[in-house]
Amino acid sequence: MKSDFSPQDVNIENYEAIIIPGGRAPDRMRTNNGLVNLTKEAFQKGKVIAAICHGPQLLIEAGVVKGKKATCYVSVSTDLRNAGGIYLNKSVVVDGNLVTSRFPADLPDFCGETLRLLEKGNV
Amino acid sequence: MKSDFSPQDVNIENYEAIIIPGGRAPDRMRTNNGLVNLTKEAFQKGKVIAAICHGPQLLIEAGVVKGKKATCYVSVSTDLRNAGGIYLNKSVVVDGNLVTSRFPADLPDFCGETLRLLEKGNV
Repeated sequence: MKSDFSPQDVNIENYEAIIIPGGRAPDRMRTNNGLVNLTKEAFQKGKVIAAICHGPQLLIEAGVVKGKKATCYVSVSTDLRNAGGIYLNKSVVVDGNLVTSRFPADLPDFCGETLRLLEKGNV
Repeated sequence: MKSDFSPQDVNIENYEAIIIPGGRAPDRMRTNNGLVNLTKEAFQKGKVIAAICHGPQLLIEAGVVKGKKATCYVSVSTDLRNAGGIYLNKSVVVDGNLVTSRFPADLPDFCGETLRLLEKGNV
């Protein structure tokens, strides 16, 4: 997919949430300063941030997991802990405005909790 | 490639070095306890350990980078720092028995330093 705009063109105030997918993408996304800064800004403004599988790599890069309960694909769990996160091996973990899951089988819980946060309004 | 044996079958005393490749492999290798333990054991016994690109992910998992100067593919650099490593943006970094490089263009320096350590005997 080709994106319609770059992270620098995004005003986070116009959005309710950031959804970070898994697979190989986060390994590239975390090297893009615009995306890292957008994630930081969204976190600071209390936007819902949902990340699954390798998605939490972008949360680690943005420095937003320190002291937060979270989960991720197992290969990322040591990096999550080293970044100060509290790793839990659960299908979905919600801590404040962060929603995290481990792998595709967790998608029903991941989507459910993300929608729940969006429906009740930002944290 | 199919390996001829599993990590559990390896007696590290019979080897001079571990070379950890890059690409997607280290993301899987770090989830294999046998490989993680083999890396730890090799490190403790002063064997040469050389890792390039994403290869340092296995070093992070094995907990052998704390206080060590090292390099890696840029997407791994925050994880390396969070693991207590001292990240340097250089073509090759040697610290004790650890040799690390960033990406394929660094291969001449990476191979050169690895061979140099092997030729002078283990550190």
